[in-house]
Amino acid sequence: MDVRSRLGANVKRLREQLGLSQEQLAFDADMHRTYISGIERGVRNPTVTVLERLAMALKTKSSDLLT
Amino acid sequence: MDVRSRLGANVKRLREQLGLSQEQLAFDADMHRTYISGIERGVRNPTVTVLERLAMALKTKSSDLLT
Repeated sequence: MDVRSRLGANVKRLREQLGLSQEQLAFDADMHRTYISGIERGVRNPTVTVLERLAMALKTKSSDLLT
Repeated sequence: MDVRSRLGANVKRLREQLGLSQEQLAFDADMHRTYISGIERGVRNPTVTVLERLAMALKTKSSDLLT
């Protein structure tokens, strides 16, 4: 699985574990909801600083989003 | 330490462990040498697909570059 697909699967899993909607995660990470959706579908290629913001909102480490 | 500084320190450490110059790593990862230099100095903000290419050239996993 390529890195964007792994990232997308991890974000979706962690978001659902926290009981957050895409809208709520988008708000917490200061991103647009459609960007979260694109990341979860593996069609976005975010930078490491975006990854870090997502990880904080998901209460995890950025490295854990890529495993 | 912010994510770009952590990434830079990890890339430099792993590159030196492999005995590679910035030029050699740049060639292996299909990037410009000045881009590798910028990543190591924490002034670049690469995407996850660039991270994956770097990780392959450094014989590690992309998640390990962010720890």
